[in-house]
Amino acid sequence: MSSKIARPKKIKAQAVLLVARHWLMLSVAINIGFLLKLIHDGHLRMEWSGKENGVALSSLSSYPAEPKPENDGQIQQKLINLDHGDPTMYQSYWKQMGDRATVVISGWQSVSYFSDTKNLCWFLEPGFANAVTRLHNLVGNAETENRHIVVGTGSTQLFQAVLYALCPYDAPEPMSIVSAAPFYSSYPLITECLKSGLYKWRGDANDFDKDEPYIELVTSPNNPDGSIREAVFNGSGGILVHDLAYYWPQYTPISSRTDYDIMLFTLSKSTGHAGMRLGWALVKDEAIAKKMVKFIEISSIGVSKDSQVRAAKILDVISDTYGDAETSNESKPFFDYGYEEMEKRWGQLREAVNKGQSFSLPNLPVGKCNFSNRTFGTQPAFAWVKCEQAVDDCESFLKKHKILTRGGAHFGSSKKYVRVSLIGHDKDYNEFIRRLSLINSVQSP
Amino acid sequence: MSSKIARPKKIKAQAVLLVARHWLMLSVAINIGFLLKLIHDGHLRMEWSGKENGVALSSLSSYPAEPKPENDGQIQQKLINLDHGDPTMYQSYWKQMGDRATVVISGWQSVSYFSDTKNLCWFLEPGFANAVTRLHNLVGNAETENRHIVVGTGSTQLFQAVLYALCPYDAPEPMSIVSAAPFYSSYPLITECLKSGLYKWRGDANDFDKDEPYIELVTSPNNPDGSIREAVFNGSGGILVHDLAYYWPQYTPISSRTDYDIMLFTLSKSTGHAGMRLGWALVKDEAIAKKMVKFIEISSIGVSKDSQVRAAKILDVISDTYGDAETSNESKPFFDYGYEEMEKRWGQLREAVNKGQSFSLPNLPVGKCNFSNRTFGTQPAFAWVKCEQAVDDCESFLKKHKILTRGGAHFGSSKKYVRVSLIGHDKDYNEFIRRLSLINSVQSP
Repeated sequence: MSSKIARPKKIKAQAVLLVARHWLMLSVAINIGFLLKLIHDGHLRMEWSGKENGVALSSLSSYPAEPKPENDGQIQQKLINLDHGDPTMYQSYWKQMGDRATVVISGWQSVSYFSDTKNLCWFLEPGFANAVTRLHNLVGNAETENRHIVVGTGSTQLFQAVLYALCPYDAPEPMSIVSAAPFYSSYPLITECLKSGLYKWRGDANDFDKDEPYIELVTSPNNPDGSIREAVFNGSGGILVHDLAYYWPQYTPISSRTDYDIMLFTLSKSTGHAGMRLGWALVKDEAIAKKMVKFIEISSIGVSKDSQVRAAKILDVISDTYGDAETSNESKPFFDYGYEEMEKRWGQLREAVNKGQSFSLPNLPVGKCNFSNRTFGTQPAFAWVKCEQAVDDCESFLKKHKILTRGGAHFGSSKKYVRVSLIGHDKDYNEFIRRLSLINSVQSP
Repeated sequence: MSSKIARPKKIKAQAVLLVARHWLMLSVAINIGFLLKLIHDGHLRMEWSGKENGVALSSLSSYPAEPKPENDGQIQQKLINLDHGDPTMYQSYWKQMGDRATVVISGWQSVSYFSDTKNLCWFLEPGFANAVTRLHNLVGNAETENRHIVVGTGSTQLFQAVLYALCPYDAPEPMSIVSAAPFYSSYPLITECLKSGLYKWRGDANDFDKDEPYIELVTSPNNPDGSIREAVFNGSGGILVHDLAYYWPQYTPISSRTDYDIMLFTLSKSTGHAGMRLGWALVKDEAIAKKMVKFIEISSIGVSKDSQVRAAKILDVISDTYGDAETSNESKPFFDYGYEEMEKRWGQLREAVNKGQSFSLPNLPVGKCNFSNRTFGTQPAFAWVKCEQAVDDCESFLKKHKILTRGGAHFGSSKKYVRVSLIGHDKDYNEFIRRLSLINSVQSP
């Protein structure tokens, strides 16, 4: 870990305060210009691009070139972007794996639109389908028997495919879409993006009291707050969609083999390959799976074969690391790497938060993991941080310290909260912890 | 070419008639069962899946396994699917190229969401952008100076991105979308898919007479009929979107460097890599390009990096085949291969059509190609075939002969027409020509 974290703890409080105040004032002065540009752009703000904010977030561009190494002075001045869950943490694992996860693709491959015309999902590569099934069976996190696998351009496209599949085209009113707050900030953006007549975003499932059909999105562990969730409604009239992007053993104990009607998964958060744009759905009902396939056919005529071929390899390599003992000795099994990295990062975060009274974190459930046999508390890919005391707008407050996070309002919650990605590059994460500790030390009584 | 095509021409007419009648009756009897299943499923029929029709179109599944070779007897009984433009014709070229077009991708690649945070299109791989620019400059088919390149999951996603970008979110009425008939059958499907409040499909541009803003889609060469098009409207109030998927020198003379505001291209029809699901837009206006990027961000958080890396290689290999003389001698330049193959296929088609009075083809313009210096007539990826005489439903008629095509009604035109893909596998194409010749010989007076 960086030396920044390992500062001597017994340095006199007075000296820290002076240094920190000076640093804070300087920091605020430098940033006042682009802070004005960081005002939200209304209902569709996602801020993926650094350019849009007038700031080049060059450290996020990790491919194909490596980011340039930064020295300590540079990183302390740099904007740390923890707004989106860019899973660059995983890059070092895949580098360790060397050629084992490499694929070679010939020029004549990916010519046809079709992958398997005998499959309901005709653009699903059989090798990818097999690798998905194999990994679920190994981890035990989802039932794959008698399910249709539908592949999508990320679980983002699959979410839209689900809405299309579940909402009748000729209904007099659009179907209501709800999710318990705090909910994933993209759900309302996607749902409202085209002002569809098929569905309508109705916000917090806890506030929904209309006597009409609806779809409830259940994300567990939840994005942004990591809570383990059940549906708010279990009565009739509701259709449940389970977003299980984070139901993997590096983040949470695998307590049971989930068996829901519609389950969504994504490569971004399981293996860390966000740039592949690949997700999959496990769907019980054939008619629903067919309509999802129809949506993906209309909206993108299938899904990249190149990414599917690569993903098959990546998933198989993960399963292989749990194979024979010899293989396992060569390299750490994937989920052990992920678990230990998340454990370390959550340890650092809790230590920084516990240094003062400026911030708090949610309590997360502890459980036994059937996969690893470990008993541990959920350690999500995001931290749902609350600014305590007089800070009402936590996102703006952290921006003053050049820490970009996503404010609670985007998740249907209070501005006292922010969502912070914990799965970025090591260096950025360490710098975030350093700044958080400093703020917390300075602001404490 | 197959021996099926090279039958002796002087065989007695009477004998042909008897044999053909027998064959036709047998064929109709065998197919009566699944013909009933081939009825359209209403407004969203695209029929990509063979399974949906109760027939496994296994010959279309070309990847990763090769299709099993069929003997003459098998292919004569087989359903020939020319409904979609699956560009498998190109596979043999890319096989010839061997390792030159192969890419190797390491396990640690495609981890980050980001490709180039300094670019407005932050998910655009710089290598892909360079390869696109290089190829356009070589071919001379589109202006790339002072344009923003936006990459999409096929030009299908880019079309949606354009609609999102051009239609104001808060307009009182949805924007009208039009295109001159016959128009690409996916335009209405995509536009109406989610019953968007932003835009509405209004059909044939020639019938549009509302005094309100609209978007006109101009496809040139046109899908389905190959015509060279200009906008129907050139007055105020209209925004033009140019779909130039087929503006490549294997299909049509490159008469000028197009310079439109919004131009769409796709890999499927230029290089033949439909399974990559990759397209690109050249966009003059920065604000429009930004909104297109926003749509792709919301709907799929970017575009497969793996496909972009592969596409960069493929496009560069094409440009390379026009490089030094030594390279060119090794293998035929790409567009020469495509041109000669299309020329051959159109020759076969015209010969089969001219054998009788059952079918006709459109007249297509002849011009000088600035790229190849050849003077030739447009030879589109699709044939727009008209059934003459008493046949009113050309699609159903050809289905009786186990030839799947897409009927004219899908393109806003008459059922007397069908669109036939000409860019499939050699064997299927030859069999199509054999059947067409036979039908034409039998039905002629």
